[in-house]
Amino acid sequence: MHPLFHPRAIAVYGASSDPTKIGGRPLDFLKGCGFDGPLYPINPKAPVIQGLPSFATVSAVPGPVDLAIVAVPAPAVLPALEDCAAKGVGAAVVLSSGFAEVGGVGAEWQQGITALARRSGMRVVGPNCMGVINVRRRIVGTFTPSATGFGLVPGRISLVSQSGAFGGYCLSLIRQRGLGLNLWVTTGNQSDVDFADCVSHFAQDEGTQVIVGYIEAATDKDRLIAALDLARENGKRIVVMKVGSSEAGAQAAASHTASLAGSDQVYDGLFRQYGVYRARSIDELFDVAYACSLPTPVPKGRRLGLLTVSGGVGALMADVAAECGLDVAPMPEDAQRRLKVILPFCGPRNPVDMTAQLVNDLSLFEKNFELMLEEGGYDLIVAFLSSVGQVLDLSSALLLQLQKVLARFPDRTVIMSMLASPEVRKVYEAAGVMLFDEPTRAVRAAQALVYFAQEAQRARTRAAPPDLPGTALAPPRRAVNEVEAKAVLASAGIPAVRELVAATEDAAARCAAQIGYPVVLKIASADIAHKSEIGGVLVGLQDEAQVRAAFGTLLQRARQHAPQARIDGMVVAQMAGKGVETILGVVRDPVFGAVIMFGLGGVFVEAFKDVAFRVAPFGVDEARAMIDEVKGRILLTGLRGQPPSDEAALADAIAALSVYAARHEAALESIDINPFVVLPRGQGALALDALIMPRPKG
Amino acid sequence: MHPLFHPRAIAVYGASSDPTKIGGRPLDFLKGCGFDGPLYPINPKAPVIQGLPSFATVSAVPGPVDLAIVAVPAPAVLPALEDCAAKGVGAAVVLSSGFAEVGGVGAEWQQGITALARRSGMRVVGPNCMGVINVRRRIVGTFTPSATGFGLVPGRISLVSQSGAFGGYCLSLIRQRGLGLNLWVTTGNQSDVDFADCVSHFAQDEGTQVIVGYIEAATDKDRLIAALDLARENGKRIVVMKVGSSEAGAQAAASHTASLAGSDQVYDGLFRQYGVYRARSIDELFDVAYACSLPTPVPKGRRLGLLTVSGGVGALMADVAAECGLDVAPMPEDAQRRLKVILPFCGPRNPVDMTAQLVNDLSLFEKNFELMLEEGGYDLIVAFLSSVGQVLDLSSALLLQLQKVLARFPDRTVIMSMLASPEVRKVYEAAGVMLFDEPTRAVRAAQALVYFAQEAQRARTRAAPPDLPGTALAPPRRAVNEVEAKAVLASAGIPAVRELVAATEDAAARCAAQIGYPVVLKIASADIAHKSEIGGVLVGLQDEAQVRAAFGTLLQRARQHAPQARIDGMVVAQMAGKGVETILGVVRDPVFGAVIMFGLGGVFVEAFKDVAFRVAPFGVDEARAMIDEVKGRILLTGLRGQPPSDEAALADAIAALSVYAARHEAALESIDINPFVVLPRGQGALALDALIMPRPKG
Repeated sequence: MHPLFHPRAIAVYGASSDPTKIGGRPLDFLKGCGFDGPLYPINPKAPVIQGLPSFATVSAVPGPVDLAIVAVPAPAVLPALEDCAAKGVGAAVVLSSGFAEVGGVGAEWQQGITALARRSGMRVVGPNCMGVINVRRRIVGTFTPSATGFGLVPGRISLVSQSGAFGGYCLSLIRQRGLGLNLWVTTGNQSDVDFADCVSHFAQDEGTQVIVGYIEAATDKDRLIAALDLARENGKRIVVMKVGSSEAGAQAAASHTASLAGSDQVYDGLFRQYGVYRARSIDELFDVAYACSLPTPVPKGRRLGLLTVSGGVGALMADVAAECGLDVAPMPEDAQRRLKVILPFCGPRNPVDMTAQLVNDLSLFEKNFELMLEEGGYDLIVAFLSSVGQVLDLSSALLLQLQKVLARFPDRTVIMSMLASPEVRKVYEAAGVMLFDEPTRAVRAAQALVYFAQEAQRARTRAAPPDLPGTALAPPRRAVNEVEAKAVLASAGIPAVRELVAATEDAAARCAAQIGYPVVLKIASADIAHKSEIGGVLVGLQDEAQVRAAFGTLLQRARQHAPQARIDGMVVAQMAGKGVETILGVVRDPVFGAVIMFGLGGVFVEAFKDVAFRVAPFGVDEARAMIDEVKGRILLTGLRGQPPSDEAALADAIAALSVYAARHEAALESIDINPFVVLPRGQGALALDALIMPRPKG
Repeated sequence: MHPLFHPRAIAVYGASSDPTKIGGRPLDFLKGCGFDGPLYPINPKAPVIQGLPSFATVSAVPGPVDLAIVAVPAPAVLPALEDCAAKGVGAAVVLSSGFAEVGGVGAEWQQGITALARRSGMRVVGPNCMGVINVRRRIVGTFTPSATGFGLVPGRISLVSQSGAFGGYCLSLIRQRGLGLNLWVTTGNQSDVDFADCVSHFAQDEGTQVIVGYIEAATDKDRLIAALDLARENGKRIVVMKVGSSEAGAQAAASHTASLAGSDQVYDGLFRQYGVYRARSIDELFDVAYACSLPTPVPKGRRLGLLTVSGGVGALMADVAAECGLDVAPMPEDAQRRLKVILPFCGPRNPVDMTAQLVNDLSLFEKNFELMLEEGGYDLIVAFLSSVGQVLDLSSALLLQLQKVLARFPDRTVIMSMLASPEVRKVYEAAGVMLFDEPTRAVRAAQALVYFAQEAQRARTRAAPPDLPGTALAPPRRAVNEVEAKAVLASAGIPAVRELVAATEDAAARCAAQIGYPVVLKIASADIAHKSEIGGVLVGLQDEAQVRAAFGTLLQRARQHAPQARIDGMVVAQMAGKGVETILGVVRDPVFGAVIMFGLGGVFVEAFKDVAFRVAPFGVDEARAMIDEVKGRILLTGLRGQPPSDEAALADAIAALSVYAARHEAALESIDINPFVVLPRGQGALALDALIMPRPKG
């Protein structure tokens, strides 16, 4: 990928003398922006293009060429690329459209591009893409009008967008907001280079601190996961926009990319799993990227101090902070008294309200700020200063105070919120202090910084997926009854209720003795689906006599209600204690393979879609994160005087299921464990019912 | 209130020659901004202030004075106001602080101001406020630095803020965003004029179309409700910021205003009840105000068309639209085919994706747009055009197309989203077309317009609160048992399970016959709280023999478990059918009095705070709105093959409860109906248990 972003020389295939055309614009941009290497227009029809000597083919170029920008019509693309490969060009960016997105012969041409790339080792971006930018090197290999006049400042954000239109819009936004950009690339039809390749490159790129991504559909699970993992390992922060969470949105995204995108909820789980921040608006995407691009320390915790000149805005910030899970802990009592001495009518708790008095006494800022860091021990502080940022000398004086205090507390992060003039913004950002106009956005940025810090911590300490027990049985190759299903799960380390099938009354009595009283008796028949509805389940049987009586009763009910059903006998089952019902599942995702699902039982999954997903396999702390993620988790904490549930046993079971599902991915269509009952703490958890669907051989 | 906003002449009490002082700044602003009436500095110490002849008191002023701005030290305020009242000044704005917010003698002075205002009829704003602005009249009666240099454009937004700091910040924001402002006022300590007075004035003000409010604590329920109602009746749209939804936020807000704010959830209910839009961020506050301030038609429905140049942004907008309850209905099949003819590779469904081809063929916009309005029948369209708005001639050409199409469809609303230069923004807004940089904010603005349209519709058709039955009993004056409580509720039109207390076995048999079998028997004793835990409830009794046997059993259990308890006998109750358990309640709010609460039973209220509140009394459609508001409502729709519940009976009961609670507000502390069981549709609903707490006489 190096030649793509760091070419020594660039050829433009299909270069045009008209700088408004798709083949003319990249050359015009490259010339105008100040790229410092040789530029070779490739066009057999004219000897000079835009004042540069032109060549008929890239092979005719005398010196080496690292990057080719290809803007010839679709039928001419493959020959052009073959020419490039022959020349030893390192990377090609195909701007031309008319390939897989239109189907037919275009799709065939695209397959040709893929094959060529694989064969030659030349990396190909596109086709049907918007190109590539390296801001520091002033390489603008794109035809998006958003790059007109360059107007980009070098910085620590790199961006990869599968969509060209989205990428172009982001470029305009980056210019408008004055964000510092490093590399920019749009991947289009992804014939060779895809989203994961770019993330992986950025993850290893020294100039990149933040990766902004727009993804529509992943193509290769393993490479994507490896790239996300590498980025996290190298301390890069990833913020993504992924569309299609609604039905209309998903349909729009699918028709846009003409590819199967996988379930949106699975992406959501994947992002959480790999510490990726998923933005829900474009404002948020770039707010978070901006916050991460400044050289602030990693917050040690989630204690947030709020300093304000408006009590109302202070309360608003506290509301938003609470909503996003930050800890707006009060100042210690003694420190509150000291704040009151500094300013009698201040609000000293947290938010600390300096009131409009700040304008009369600027030193209030430094005093309050210092006391909050020293005594409040806040990991981050958001300071709201209304429209102070519109006055340069006032703002500069406050910045000096801020820097003085921060020098004493280099491990703390401060986020300023005020309406600011462009000059004030520049002064603050040059000093490494971030600045948001809108106070709630400042608080959300603080939350994003905390999220990344927690994710980094989690990654360092996370447990590996547990080992699959050596005794684990392979998944059945055909539909099996619940007893067999639970036996398979139990072998894989997912605890299930003890059950035996008894064909006769005598056998039932023996089984019950073996399992231990009290027991449950259920009709064992693959032909009777809803046993409880026909009275086919009898619970709380205390002794042999009750078991024998129940056997007869159930047999009679089975014959009466389903005379045709094949009866295997009766299931004799351990009587599980009272617990909280949850649902564990394995589903197949077209992109991500075996995916684990967890939710609370009852109406939570059905009615509220209160479900967490993760890509298998994973360890026990990822399982815990899944449990923490669902709102219904509160039921496990011991509501209404109930004992708290055995969440450790639940997490173990989820992790074990993920390992089993990953190992047998090819043979499994789905697993549904419902209910999986979580008993009081220390008593474990148990699958009461389970269904394993083998994967039909394709 | 008229003299406050439309004075012919203004006096400034405590006028200072130093234009940076609190008494100097308003005079400086008023002189500099171009107020066209006489200005009278009041200051006994200097004959000329800022070039104007000064007077010792307002009584000494020769001509009439309508408005006095008072900026003298706190101890001198009351004498100054008395002087004003004697002169016949219509309104006074007290900027000075040192009153109720500091307590002690300050609080007494403030009471004096209130008394003077009531006595004299002179309206007083403040003390401890930031003042008042009338943009068209160029009256800037404030000392906030945010008003420096005026910089305001006249428009249709009026703002009232209880907080001065918040109001000042908003003023800066309004200037920065270039929003059109009409009137601006901050109410401070609200000694006389309060938030409700200002809303009421704006509601009757021709120049105001949108009311932006910042409220911390209402003082008078009835006047606030009357003001909100009047605004809605007069077609004004109200957007409010109310802080304190979190514990930290509520604490900050309470310490800030030193007043009891009432429950945040009650405010939330009140806002829904009166069609007020509650914003959760300052961006949202002004996005909605901006959207409402432009002269767009009222959307007839919630069908949203999305037109885009980026498939990705189209899908993002669809996601957000779905999240806010808008209907992203697809284009009709035939129209989709016609779109494909116009542009073969477009996305024709909805979002309609014009792709980057728009830049090559501008007429695509008009064609697509027209087809969407004509064939898609969308009430609103959000059109995303990336960064087209940075090019003036391109944008102007598109605006002409837009206007041409809209002339044919004057009842449709269009919201543009694109990065735009200030010039382009001006051109569009001058044409009445609103413009958002960020596409998700454009969609949320569309949702706000739909919200106001739906609320206006709801207000026109809403049912009055039902009549209280003539037979309704007064609330008990002491704690009563559940049987008596349900009898009271039943008398008020809230259906309750039929119950009778039987002191003897014979009586129980008679009662059961009267109620009809099957029946439930419960121990009747005020001394035994949790009957079911001691086996004190027997259900499904089918005949007289079972009732007689149960009577004995329960009596024995009661004596055994609670030998000291006074036993009244047994409650014989109708056996209710199977239904969905809900909770109805009445709580007292310190500001809003009787407040009705509704939620689903089980863990929904406790664990998820999934509860709706409304201020009593209200009609049946407000009750329906409460039901629709809670997420658990899905349980009433007939999940898992259950029949749908009788929501009509539920709504009737909620409305009846609200009327009863309002009528007996003074005598009631709380009512708790739990469970209130909603039976299948057509079968009604029933209170199974109820508790009425009378209000202790204070």
